[in-house]
Parts: sequence; C-alpha cells; structure tokens
Amino acid sequence: MAAAPPEAPAGAAAARRLARGCWSAFWDYETPKVIVVRNRRLGVVYRAVQLLILLYFVWYVFVVQKSYQDSETGPESSVITKVKGITASRHKVWDVEEYVKPPEGGSVFSIITRIEVTPFQTLGKCPESIKVHSATCHSDSDCVAGELDMLGNGLRTGRCVPYYFGTSKTCEVSGWCPVEDGASVSQFLGKMAPNFTILIKNSIHYPKFQFSKGNLASRKDDYLKRCTFDHVSDPYCPIFKLGFIVEQAGENFTELAHRGGVIGAIINWDCDLDLSASECNPKYSFRRLDPKHVPASSGYNFRFAKYYKINGTTTRTLIKAYGIRIDVIVHGQAGKFSLIPTIINLATALTSIGVGSFLCDWILLTFMNKNKVYSHKKFDKMVAAPASGLAQQDSTPADPRGLAQL
Amino acid sequence: MAAAPPEAPAGAAAARRLARGCWSAFWDYETPKVIVVRNRRLGVVYRAVQLLILLYFVWYVFVVQKSYQDSETGPESSVITKVKGITASRHKVWDVEEYVKPPEGGSVFSIITRIEVTPFQTLGKCPESIKVHSATCHSDSDCVAGELDMLGNGLRTGRCVPYYFGTSKTCEVSGWCPVEDGASVSQFLGKMAPNFTILIKNSIHYPKFQFSKGNLASRKDDYLKRCTFDHVSDPYCPIFKLGFIVEQAGENFTELAHRGGVIGAIINWDCDLDLSASECNPKYSFRRLDPKHVPASSGYNFRFAKYYKINGTTTRTLIKAYGIRIDVIVHGQAGKFSLIPTIINLATALTSIGVGSFLCDWILLTFMNKNKVYSHKKFDKMVAAPASGLAQQDSTPADPRGLAQL
Amino acid sequence: MAAAPPEAPAGAAAARRLARGCWSAFWDYETPKVIVVRNRRLGVVYRAVQLLILLYFVWYVFVVQKSYQDSETGPESSVITKVKGITASRHKVWDVEEYVKPPEGGSVFSIITRIEVTPFQTLGKCPESIKVHSATCHSDSDCVAGELDMLGNGLRTGRCVPYYFGTSKTCEVSGWCPVEDGASVSQFLGKMAPNFTILIKNSIHYPKFQFSKGNLASRKDDYLKRCTFDHVSDPYCPIFKLGFIVEQAGENFTELAHRGGVIGAIINWDCDLDLSASECNPKYSFRRLDPKHVPASSGYNFRFAKYYKINGTTTRTLIKAYGIRIDVIVHGQAGKFSLIPTIINLATALTSIGVGSFLCDWILLTFMNKNKVYSHKKFDKMVAAPASGLAQQDSTPADPRGLAQL
Repeated sequence: MAAAPPEAPAGAAAARRLARGCWSAFWDYETPKVIVVRNRRLGVVYRAVQLLILLYFVWYVFVVQKSYQDSETGPESSVITKVKGITASRHKVWDVEEYVKPPEGGSVFSIITRIEVTPFQTLGKCPESIKVHSATCHSDSDCVAGELDMLGNGLRTGRCVPYYFGTSKTCEVSGWCPVEDGASVSQFLGKMAPNFTILIKNSIHYPKFQFSKGNLASRKDDYLKRCTFDHVSDPYCPIFKLGFIVEQAGENFTELAHRGGVIGAIINWDCDLDLSASECNPKYSFRRLDPKHVPASSGYNFRFAKYYKINGTTTRTLIKAYGIRIDVIVHGQAGKFSLIPTIINLATALTSIGVGSFLCDWILLTFMNKNKVYSHKKFDKMVAAPASGLAQQDSTPADPRGLAQL
Repeated sequence: MAAAPPEAPAGAAAARRLARGCWSAFWDYETPKVIVVRNRRLGVVYRAVQLLILLYFVWYVFVVQKSYQDSETGPESSVITKVKGITASRHKVWDVEEYVKPPEGGSVFSIITRIEVTPFQTLGKCPESIKVHSATCHSDSDCVAGELDMLGNGLRTGRCVPYYFGTSKTCEVSGWCPVEDGASVSQFLGKMAPNFTILIKNSIHYPKFQFSKGNLASRKDDYLKRCTFDHVSDPYCPIFKLGFIVEQAGENFTELAHRGGVIGAIINWDCDLDLSASECNPKYSFRRLDPKHVPASSGYNFRFAKYYKINGTTTRTLIKAYGIRIDVIVHGQAGKFSLIPTIINLATALTSIGVGSFLCDWILLTFMNKNKVYSHKKFDKMVAAPASGLAQQDSTPADPRGLAQL
Repeated sequence: MAAAPPEAPAGAAAARRLARGCWSAFWDYETPKVIVVRNRRLGVVYRAVQLLILLYFVWYVFVVQKSYQDSETGPESSVITKVKGITASRHKVWDVEEYVKPPEGGSVFSIITRIEVTPFQTLGKCPESIKVHSATCHSDSDCVAGELDMLGNGLRTGRCVPYYFGTSKTCEVSGWCPVEDGASVSQFLGKMAPNFTILIKNSIHYPKFQFSKGNLASRKDDYLKRCTFDHVSDPYCPIFKLGFIVEQAGENFTELAHRGGVIGAIINWDCDLDLSASECNPKYSFRRLDPKHVPASSGYNFRFAKYYKINGTTTRTLIKAYGIRIDVIVHGQAGKFSLIPTIINLATALTSIGVGSFLCDWILLTFMNKNKVYSHKKFDKMVAAPASGLAQQDSTPADPRGLAQL
C-alpha cells in the first residue's frame, strides 16, 4: 500500500517521457546515408542511363504523346445536310424531292441514281416471279394452294399459269400484281448526279471541356452560296460535289450509280485545346462502307411505293431504288492540360530514373575489379545475434536490393 | 587601391576551383548505404511481401486487365439492313415495302405487325372521340366553339352530336373525319412475321489503330443467299430470323406483335489487336429496350397516312401501326500494346514493391526483440550542435521514414 | 594427371560454397542506412512539404477527381419519342400525322411549323424561277435549249416566256410546273405549337459495369398520362412542352417557327456507380444546334411532296416545310471503384512525397550554416584507388542524388 502511490506517478512519467520522445522524434529530419564513388567510368554510365530515360520522357511521353493532357473522345455532334441539283432521265426531269430519301436532311440519306419502276400494281392474281425458288411449274399439281414462299411475292392459288413472257409457266400467286420481275422498267437518273452539291452542316461540343465549334465559315456575305469545298483554300465551306466525294472514296461513279453503294463522309475533330480554338479544325475523309467484294450482297438498294386510288381501286407504283447512301460519321478527340496525368507521368519518370541507379549498383558490384571494397563500404552486415555483428564479405545478387531501394 | 588587383584573381581562382569541384562531383556515382540484417524470419517476410506484390501485377494487372495496352472505345460504324419476307392478313398480302418503315435500310427500322386503319378520312365535321377528356356532352352548352383540345382531334364547333355508336353524345369537331376511335379497323400482319429474315451488314473502323473489319463472310459463292446466323457454325452470316431475335430478347412474340416494342440488336466488337485480325469477331446480343412494365406508355406505335384525291377532295387513309422496332447498336473496345501505359504500370509495380521494405522496417523496429540494436545501426543521429553529434538510442516511428525512402 | 583429380572436387566445392552463399544472402533483409538530423526548422519544412503533397492527393485527386474509379463514357442508348398535339392554320386543322416527319418516333424528328405549298404540279413546260441565276431573258436567243441549271427547276426548252406575274420574262423549262417560286402559298401552323407535348423515352446501358437505367418513372398508375417535366418535382416524367424546350434553348419561338431551326435535347447520365442506382439521374439541357448567325444558311427546312393521279396524269403537291428539328443527344460517364487506377495513384502519391525529402536535402546542404558537417555525415567518399578512400569535403549538387534515391 505504501509502494503503490510512488509507482503510479513513475508509470505516468515513463509514458509522458515516451510520448515526448515520439513527438520530438517526429520532427527529426531523416535522409539516407549515401556512398560517393569517385569513379569516372561508373559515373558516366550512371549519368548516361539517366539521360536516356529523361530524353524518352521529355521527348516521347510529353512532346509526342502529350501525356500531360486529359482527353475526351466522341463529341456530341449534330449534322444537317442539304442536297441541291437537278437531273434528267430519258423522259423525265427529277428534282431533289424525288431523288433524296429521306428528305429531312439528317446524317444518313440516299441519293437515288437508278430506279426500276413497276407501275400500276394492284391486289390481284398473277404469275409468280420466275426467279423465285420452286415457282416454275408444268401443271397445277406443282403448285400448292395457300403456300406462302418467304422470298416470293404472294400467296399461291394452286394454279400453274404462263409467265409474262417466254414459254415457261410459273405458279399463280395472289398479291400485288404484276410482280416486279415481270413488269419493271429501269431508268437511269445518274447522268448529272456528279454535279449535285451536298451541304454538310456539323456542330460539335466537348462537354468535359465546354468547347463547341461548327464547320461553317461565319461570314456575313453569301459566301456559302457560291463556294465549294477545298481543304486548302475553303476548309470552312462544307459544300461537296457528289462526284468529288465518290472520287475521294476511290470509286468509279458510273459503276457505283448502277449498283448503288454506301459512302461514309467522316468528319474528324482532333483538337489540342491548349492551343487557340482556331487550331481545332475539321478534317474530311471519304470511304466506301459497304463490302464491295461480296457478290451475294454488294450494292445498295431499297423499295418504296406511291399509292393512288384510280376509280375506287388502290393502285401503287413500286420503285426499287439503287442509290448512293451517304453516312456522315463524326468523331474526334480533344486534349487539354490536366494536373493528374501530368503528375502520374512525372512520378513514373522519376521512378524510371531511379531504376538507373539499380543498374549501376549491379555493374558496380559485378564487373568492377574491386567490388569487394565497394560492397564492404555499401553493406553494413549484422546477424541476428548481436555478437556476430561485424562486417564480412559476400556477393549478394543485386536484384532484390535494387528493387528494395525504389 | 593596391589590395584590389590581387583580390580579383583570387576570387576568380576560387570560382574556377568551385566550378571544377562541381564538375568532377557531377561524375561521381552515388549509392545509398545499406544495412544487411542476417535474420531469416525477417528475410522471409520481406521476400513474401515482394512476391505477393509481384504476383498481383504480373497476373492481375498485366495478364487479366491487359494494362500494357492502349485502348479505344466507340468505333466508327456503319449499318445497312435489309428485311425479306411476306405475310398475309385476313384479306390481304403484305410485302416488305408495306410493313417496313422507313424503307432506306438504316440502323433503326420498324417491322409493322398490327395496324388500325381509318379509311376515307376527309376534312369535315364529326363527333369527337369519346376517349378525349371533356368531350362527352349533353347539350351544345357543354361544347365551347373554337376550343382546341391538345389531345383531341379537331376544333370544336360548339354543337353536341350523337356518337358514332351507342347512345352517348360528344362535342362536334372540325378536322379529319371520321376520328380514329370511331371508325378504325384492326388488322394483324404478324402471322408469318417470325420467319422474316433480317440482314444486318455492319462495318467498323478504329481510327486510332487504323483497323477496319466487317461482319460479312467474304466468300465468292452465294453463301449469303442461303445461310442463317449461328454463333457457332455461321458467325459471319448476319442474317437473323425475326422470331430468333425476339426469342433471344426473352420476349413473347404474339404479345410483342400486338402491343409493339423496341428491341436492341447489340453488336459488340471487343478486339485485342495484338492478336491477328481473325481473333476480332463480332458478338451479337438482343435486349428489349422500351420499358415494358410502365403501363402508361408501354409498347411501340406510330401513325402515318396515305393521301388520295377522289374527284377533287383530298382523302387519306390513317394508319396507326404497332410494330417491332429494331435498333442496331454497335459498340466495342480495341486494345493494342503501347509503351506509355506499360511503363506507368511497371513503375507502379516497382514503387509498390518498395512499400514492402517499409513494412519490414516497421516490423524490424517494432516487433523484433533487439530492435534497439537494429535502430542503432540503421540510424545515425546528429543534432544541430555538432558537439552532440554522437549516436543515441531512440524509437522513431517508422512511417515517415518509410515514405521518405520511396 | 595426378593434380587434376583433387582440383575438380575443389572447384565443385567452391561452386557449392558460392551457391550456398547466394542462397543465404537471398534471405537477408536489407534496409538503407539513415541519418537522423535533430533540427526542428528542417523537420518542420520536411513535414510541411509532405503534408501539402498528401493534402493534394487526398483532397483533389481522390475526393474531387475520383481517381480511384474506372470510368466508361458513351453508354449504349435507345430513344423513343412521341409528339402529341393539334394545331390550326387559317383554313385547316393539322394533326400529328401531318406535322411530324419522320413519323417513326426516333431520336431525330421535325415538327413542321410553316409550309409553302405548291399545289397541282405536273410535268410540263413553264417559266423558270426568276431567282435562278441567268434565268431572266429578253428573247429566245438568251435561252439555250437543253441547258440544265443545277440550281434551276428543269431543262431549258430554248423559249423566252413571260413570268407568272409582273412584266419580266424568263426562260421556259420543262419539269414540274408551275415552279415553286411562281405559285407557292405560305401557311403558318405554329400558333398552337408551343403547347405540343413531346415524350422522350430513353434507356441507357453501360456494358462495362452491366448497369442499365431508364428515364421513366415506373409507377403503376397513369401518372405519365398527366404529368409534365419539372426537374425538381417530376424529374422522371420526360414529357416536355415544345415551348419549354425552345425557351430553355434561349430562342424566340415565333422567329424560330418562321425560319426553322435545330434544337438539341441533350440527356446527360453522369453516374457514380459506387453509390446506389437511385443516385444516377438524367440531366436535361437544350441548345440551338444550327448556326443562327450565318446568313447564307440559317434556319432549317426541307421539301416533300404528295403524289396524286388525276384522271391519268400524275400530279403532286410540293411542300417546302420549315420546322423545329429536335435532335435527342444522349451522353454520359459512369465511374466505379477499380483497383488499378487506385494503385497507380497511390504509387504516384508515395513517389511525390519522396520528392519532399529531396527538396529538404537540397536545403540541408545549401542553406543551413553547418552543411559541411551534414554532408560529411551523409556522404561516405571512396575513390577508385582504395588508398585514397578516406573522407574529404565536397559540395556535390543535390539534384542527381535526389533523383537517384527515388
């Protein structure tokens, strides 16, 4: 009972002393002890390695790859297109309303260059197309009534009737008659098509950087009524001749106009937003998008019809349209200075330079003649038992040590 | 005046000496002094920590996550679609031109499976639909002339007239008459719809890697006329049966055909461009895109009309079309080896391994019995006053030191 | 011959000894020797630098920039739109079918607010528009037969005929007659347009995180039939009044309705997927997308026609439609915790903190009065010749050393 009181204060004092020790120790400054080796050959290797690493980072990472920038791909984009021009087939003049589908002026539209017209179709009975698999017949027994061929033109009636022309016979179907293959007439609209002009208005917005830009010259005069695109003299006049587009895509216009095809008009907005906005310009390129070498499904065509009522009965003119479809594709990448990627790459640079010293350690300890001396200086041995704590030679492989220092 | 001349050369000499000193010092090689602890337990911990960290990086970061690759998402894509097939309602045969809207074969199109037809609408006067809020009336006083209900069908004339059927009365409107709800007839086209075939041509381009690919087998024969898609046997035959698509999306065809709906056909191009191009294949998946469980606005339908002139007066057939809309959505990600992410991850790996040594320091100084001896060896004390520069024990917390070394 | 046998075992023994040495050395633990400087001023600088760096990483990198997250931009998105409303021009009531093009309810659609109608056009001969360059003439000699002006309306016949009105004369063309400029009548549909309601259904999917969400309230009642959008009270009722959209875009409705224009409805899905799905909400914003200050091509319009057959001859009603095109643009970014970016940023943080010690070294050796003493303690000199291995003062620049330690 008499000893306890003095003890408690003693414990408290010890704790206080320890705390004070930690606190003061916290404010100590620590720095690794370094061994300086006065060896010109080694020094040169050492600096050369560091120089190489520095060069790689300064030149390739920061200058070429612009790794100090935060980037954003896929800008918000809006495309407005307008086609102008007029063409003539053998019997008829065609205007924009007739050869551009759909008419709304979106980013995907087709310019019809050839049509196969089947006029005066009505719902009735007529011979099936001879192209349809299993349509040819010799007697009614070859035709199953009520059969519906997915690739045919109607519901089989069960009768076998003579074809529109020639001597062969095909099964009769009920549907829109006459069928396309039996009565269609081809017309070529493409004669003047290379001269059609296409205006492509495009405005983009990079939300991350709050940056917007359009591809139209903002001039008060009616410059845009007269100009045509030229990537040198008129980069901000996005009015293209159809012939120019097809040529840029490396296609033959006549062949394309006959079989149809899809051409991509790619607008590329690669912008370094650390520079002024005027440095961020659209680049246009054109590419054939549909597979031209696949025989089974090359070319581009679609069907539409105009419906009439002629004294009570519904009649339609079916049109199979071959054309050039233009897909306007907008992509781009914007970059702007940002702290985080910069610091990540700087830290990587510093770490990489540190690797240089590891390499030199290895040379130091392996190749140089008196490495025993160096390692003696560098390594301070102590074994678990304090007694045997005195230094002794060894040849520890450099690898794990090098890593441990990084 | 006499002292100055000798001083100047002296200063110059000192500067020269200093410069020479710096220059030679620059070529010195420096390496940290290291203490080697002969302690098997500690060594095992030390290596084990390093091994774990190495495994994480080699296996997870580089093998699983492929962090050595630069990647690009959202390829440029172009989609061309073509539907084939024929179907029949009770009285009529329908072909592609009639049930596919829009016809141009873009990435979004609808296949009409059910229609509500309101034939012979003309501009005139007729009873408002009974479904319209506040359209029912008992006397003319209930109908305000000139009122235009946003959800109604026309301009109120102020008269209260008997409804098309039944005994109730509604306000008369001037507009397209008769109104849809009064006279529409429903027709179901969907009977054969599951057998419709849909060809989806898709070609993509990764601009960053200059890599393009299509989803069509490039065979010279007419393979693509006969095949249907099978992800095992025919992955490059992108011809899908509508029934297959709906089934893959986990929907009931009949129910979908009646109320309409939107199904996404997602084409996924995940490519490792370090491998050969033949390893980069499209994956197809199908998903219902419209909210099916929201009663107020489930299903998919739209209205269009065909306009006729019947002896002078304009007539239209209004069609409310329910259908299956297919949205072809293309996305993907391409990766290719690139130096910068590789080096960043390597540097991170080295730094992380270094953390291992800090952990061991801490164990060394905290848990091991004779840490006093270690810390004595490791720490070389010197106080601000050179006099008290001799070593003395302490228990500096390891943390700040560990960091300072990295 | 006698000496060889004993040698071989000796060599083997040496090799065995070396191997054993390496192996035991592999299990040694190494830690750099550190010099502790009892200097409060230096310690404070040292800790302050570390604190600043720590703060930057904890607060800016991890809290503000969320660098511990893996992110994905550009979700898969599907948009379904539906316009409701009815309007009246001077003589006529217009319903949705007539003023919305295209009708399918996709992400891009136009609401027609003004039209210029050219009724009863037939293929024939009539005066060219006076607006066409070089169309005005005084005698037939001014008109070249067979000429086709790209911006004109037809094929020149070679005759010079009086214009539709006034006294001037223009070249006769064969094409759709009468030409638009001669006979069109303007009608304004926009009176009630601000009250049209637009339902925008949008569902997105982030494939990397397998996260899907829609912008519709999933309520069982018919809430969506009654509500209109309010970003506070009804954020999940995506039904917008056209007037609200135009106002939000900062445009004047009347002026926009007359000249036409394109407005982007941008839906932004920025989601932190570490939080619950209910925290990931769409944000709506509206912006004018077409260049309004470019006189030559401002506004938005397109042409379409309705075709009739009137006792045999094809007639069309050409409609030049001015309208408000709505482009629904969906973008977004999702972020979710991921190990790799976290570890990269942690490693960067550690490396950066290490830079603090280099700064302090530099202060230590440059500014502090008795730096000679410090550098003596810190640097252990040894020259190539072991003889001159004893320590001597120098003033090595701190830089390379600082780097070498990292």
